[in-house]
Amino acid sequence: MTPDQKAEIDALRAQSFTTRRATVPALEEILYDVIPVLDHGFIRVIDYMGDDAAVVQAARVSYGKGTKKVREDAGLIAYLMRHRHSTPFEMCEIKFHVKLPIFVARQWIRHRTANVNEYSARYSILDREFYVPKPEHMAAQSASNRQGRGDVLPADKAAAVMKLLRDDAERSYDHYLEMLGTGDERSEEDRGLAAAAETVAVTGLARELARMNLSLNFYTQWYWKTDLHNFMHFLSLRADPHAQYEIRVYAEAMADVLARWVPATHDAFTNYRLGGALLSAKALAVVKAMLDGQAVDKTASGMSAREWAEVMATLGR
Amino acid sequence: MTPDQKAEIDALRAQSFTTRRATVPALEEILYDVIPVLDHGFIRVIDYMGDDAAVVQAARVSYGKGTKKVREDAGLIAYLMRHRHSTPFEMCEIKFHVKLPIFVARQWIRHRTANVNEYSARYSILDREFYVPKPEHMAAQSASNRQGRGDVLPADKAAAVMKLLRDDAERSYDHYLEMLGTGDERSEEDRGLAAAAETVAVTGLARELARMNLSLNFYTQWYWKTDLHNFMHFLSLRADPHAQYEIRVYAEAMADVLARWVPATHDAFTNYRLGGALLSAKALAVVKAMLDGQAVDKTASGMSAREWAEVMATLGR
Amino acid sequence: MTPDQKAEIDALRAQSFTTRRATVPALEEILYDVIPVLDHGFIRVIDYMGDDAAVVQAARVSYGKGTKKVREDAGLIAYLMRHRHSTPFEMCEIKFHVKLPIFVARQWIRHRTANVNEYSARYSILDREFYVPKPEHMAAQSASNRQGRGDVLPADKAAAVMKLLRDDAERSYDHYLEMLGTGDERSEEDRGLAAAAETVAVTGLARELARMNLSLNFYTQWYWKTDLHNFMHFLSLRADPHAQYEIRVYAEAMADVLARWVPATHDAFTNYRLGGALLSAKALAVVKAMLDGQAVDKTASGMSAREWAEVMATLGR
Amino acid sequence: MTPDQKAEIDALRAQSFTTRRATVPALEEILYDVIPVLDHGFIRVIDYMGDDAAVVQAARVSYGKGTKKVREDAGLIAYLMRHRHSTPFEMCEIKFHVKLPIFVARQWIRHRTANVNEYSARYSILDREFYVPKPEHMAAQSASNRQGRGDVLPADKAAAVMKLLRDDAERSYDHYLEMLGTGDERSEEDRGLAAAAETVAVTGLARELARMNLSLNFYTQWYWKTDLHNFMHFLSLRADPHAQYEIRVYAEAMADVLARWVPATHDAFTNYRLGGALLSAKALAVVKAMLDGQAVDKTASGMSAREWAEVMATLGR
Repeated sequence: MTPDQKAEIDALRAQSFTTRRATVPALEEILYDVIPVLDHGFIRVIDYMGDDAAVVQAARVSYGKGTKKVREDAGLIAYLMRHRHSTPFEMCEIKFHVKLPIFVARQWIRHRTANVNEYSARYSILDREFYVPKPEHMAAQSASNRQGRGDVLPADKAAAVMKLLRDDAERSYDHYLEMLGTGDERSEEDRGLAAAAETVAVTGLARELARMNLSLNFYTQWYWKTDLHNFMHFLSLRADPHAQYEIRVYAEAMADVLARWVPATHDAFTNYRLGGALLSAKALAVVKAMLDGQAVDKTASGMSAREWAEVMATLGR
Repeated sequence: MTPDQKAEIDALRAQSFTTRRATVPALEEILYDVIPVLDHGFIRVIDYMGDDAAVVQAARVSYGKGTKKVREDAGLIAYLMRHRHSTPFEMCEIKFHVKLPIFVARQWIRHRTANVNEYSARYSILDREFYVPKPEHMAAQSASNRQGRGDVLPADKAAAVMKLLRDDAERSYDHYLEMLGTGDERSEEDRGLAAAAETVAVTGLARELARMNLSLNFYTQWYWKTDLHNFMHFLSLRADPHAQYEIRVYAEAMADVLARWVPATHDAFTNYRLGGALLSAKALAVVKAMLDGQAVDKTASGMSAREWAEVMATLGR
Repeated sequence: MTPDQKAEIDALRAQSFTTRRATVPALEEILYDVIPVLDHGFIRVIDYMGDDAAVVQAARVSYGKGTKKVREDAGLIAYLMRHRHSTPFEMCEIKFHVKLPIFVARQWIRHRTANVNEYSARYSILDREFYVPKPEHMAAQSASNRQGRGDVLPADKAAAVMKLLRDDAERSYDHYLEMLGTGDERSEEDRGLAAAAETVAVTGLARELARMNLSLNFYTQWYWKTDLHNFMHFLSLRADPHAQYEIRVYAEAMADVLARWVPATHDAFTNYRLGGALLSAKALAVVKAMLDGQAVDKTASGMSAREWAEVMATLGR
Repeated sequence: MTPDQKAEIDALRAQSFTTRRATVPALEEILYDVIPVLDHGFIRVIDYMGDDAAVVQAARVSYGKGTKKVREDAGLIAYLMRHRHSTPFEMCEIKFHVKLPIFVARQWIRHRTANVNEYSARYSILDREFYVPKPEHMAAQSASNRQGRGDVLPADKAAAVMKLLRDDAERSYDHYLEMLGTGDERSEEDRGLAAAAETVAVTGLARELARMNLSLNFYTQWYWKTDLHNFMHFLSLRADPHAQYEIRVYAEAMADVLARWVPATHDAFTNYRLGGALLSAKALAVVKAMLDGQAVDKTASGMSAREWAEVMATLGR
């Protein structure tokens, strides 16, 4: 982060207004602050609307706060989560500023129910910032899972990969600047859309073309806004152990934000989504048989070997 | 509105918090207040996120406020509106509590990009409140427009219609209560979802069935939340002269809210959407010919008689 | 259905074309046919895109059919369903013509991820058709569930309700026609949007106003189109025992269509969605303890009495 | 394209089924065929639902075809387009297989109202295929438009850029394979999700990590499905002269598909969208004044210099 950027954030954090809106002190505390993720990435909470009570208020279509006792509110929130009544959770909203590698952005953007403004490399010149995994995250292809990671690479192999990634990214960026016909790094002034009318005296290749030489580990950034229901859906998929490590760390940082923002909703989410499990009809039949003390059998269950293993893992057998 | 409801609203309006978030004093002023629409309906602003500057901030993916001078910001907002860059407008959000006749709700709900929680007549008993148009809005079917209104009905006819509407609605409601096996009107206590576990000693017809006897002019209510872009899309369709009067009055009341909330965006919206016009390729060719001083001809233009008339009206000919 | 409508359907069913597209004979068999639901309603399949193999093809982003053996395809479909990989299911599409009571339409329309064209009572005059429940579906308000039905009403009470519903609907419709200033019932000619330019010589109240006198049990109709993923989501909520009977019968008729259309997907859907159950973290802990032969206790589980009962019912205890 | 891929396509094109569904011979003709775009990309139509008549049928919520004379149908379609009645156009659907550079995919995916299945580089190894612009598309940054292209680069500069792009991409790909610990190029067998259970004996870096070394001009591919309304919205933005050349050529190829599929809709789209123009309230006032023979003035109009120039260009002044 540049000193200018830090000063801008400090200026936002120094401001203070009076409002009649639902306000969450624990979230205000970290508002605008940078929460680092990966080697150069971050999340920042930029704005929010609503709190736990706003979920209750919407479910009751109330004239006032709609809340009763805290305990009753938490009960209603748990009830809504359990019965998949998702619309009251859609009544809260949160907005983030996120800096993330492009290959992570490509997974993330598949969540279509969010609003996004991405920094444009058609307008502006990207920074010399790219992601290189730490040795402890440099894993081999999984031998059992076609889309996962297996053991960590031996130190020498990891070092070799890191060198390749770093050298290629540095060279790509050098050539990117060379194509642009400029040794200048991007300045803040370069950015403004408002400035679109100004004459730009660049003699090099158009930015919208030059950018194609950058690799997928370069960082991009965006504003990302979503409602509480879709935020939890994002977290349930991306904070999951099956998600790629590089997106999971963003989801985990955002789950901490969820806990600050709407603690009762976070509790229900943890119980019913993150910690819960969906049992199929076949799996349920097996569980019932086991509870009845009957012998159960993988073949007779109708499940595949892989699914059987997943179910037994879920049941702690 | 009952005294209880009024007290709840007053309690909300009396509260005051400190926040670092973007805050709009002109909108805070009316927050939670009832803005009456039609004979028993209303809109109330319940919450909001962002302001004009938040649009600019998102367009620039900035670390800080992102705003420059007010004039430059307004220029950027106009540029975004003109070039249909809609995503920065999606970064603001507004939430309303609305009370409206069911037949209006049926048009309104077709806007799918909003979040809605409607008061449920499966859970609760609806109030004895229905819409009856005023004589000056009691119009005959249009002779030229299959979906519009023509002249106002003569006073005696209007009075006859009002009596039919009123008598039928009263009778429907009496029978609704009779089917429910209760002379009780709904109490606040009847409402709570949280109370779902309590035993309800009703011997009459299930609420989810009895409600089918009510007519489409009965009032319902909901929480409705949408982003600034989709809010303007709603307004452009529903504040339009072709929209049915009974939904247009809601849109007009909401357009006033827009002006309070985001004045620069409201100006651009008025200029480019509400007051603008889309000319087809054929219409553009006619305009160019007229500007060249050439004679133009309805038949040669390739337009239908109706479309020709619409274009000439747009051009003030 | 009028003889004209029947003739139109027969004409569609008589046509036959040659196509290279994925085609499902079992679905072609019933294409365009009326499948009756409730007393005057129906569903009709109007068009479809894709089949089970199209799900596989999309998951593999293949150049050709993408399918291997039938058994492997079914395995992949089950895998996708189990791991909530929903996008391949979005690659198939189905379109229905549905006739349904307005109060059912109001629940149905809350599914926002579908395309809808509804018959417009602003343009056209509705038919004299309304829903009256059969005595065996005339249930009392549930004593334990605030939004459900309890016991069936005694015969005399049911008959009284039926009479009220019928008389009120008939009267509403008579007055509707009276307001419209016409004894004419709707003719086909009345309908066409294309005819919007014709002069309509109606002297009565505008249709967009008169319709408000009709009650919520009158029938409307629409074209409804959705993708396979969202179709299953609709079915999982609306074919559920907690759904109101009057929408559930539509969902059940549509589930039969699903079985004809995509049998492998239907099997997976039945196993993982309709017949499956979501266990919370707390419920899972209880199941594990039971499997370990430990005593479990409602209070210690952290579940409410209602949730405990639901979990025990799921486990068949 | 490999011989295997060609054979798969030929097999699809050789198949023939009988259907009662709306069928479009002109589209069947090119179904599954590769339509080349850029140096290694393509579009292929994989499936479709509906035709011009289906738009009419949905607008009329008809029991049968709903069509009258061809001329009347075209008139209704033009009416719907002119008045932005978009829902009937949502009743048709089309599915493409697209091969495209990643930086184009990143723009394309911002259209959220489509269904997408992308080839996964977490599962599979990408091909050695990347985009290099032809010299005639190698343009300098525009001097007047911050996001556009200006003059074509001189031949020597263009050649230098091409060499940089090509060398960097080749080297990235070599290192990608090296990290994967395999000289093997991807085989078809590598792909199948169904095969996820097989043991994969790869000792190199996980695929989900290695891919980050590839640059944004590498090709990816996906299945992309959308409805007719959103398809036209995509075309109106991406076939526009302001769109980047590399996505515009895809949109142009797809506009040809639109013309084959729904000719009446294509005509209306060309007239009202592609060839039309939106005039603001201020621009309309200027046009009216000009038609009245009054002098108009840039400053008095309230428009910026840029907007004034745009409006005059639209009017051919």
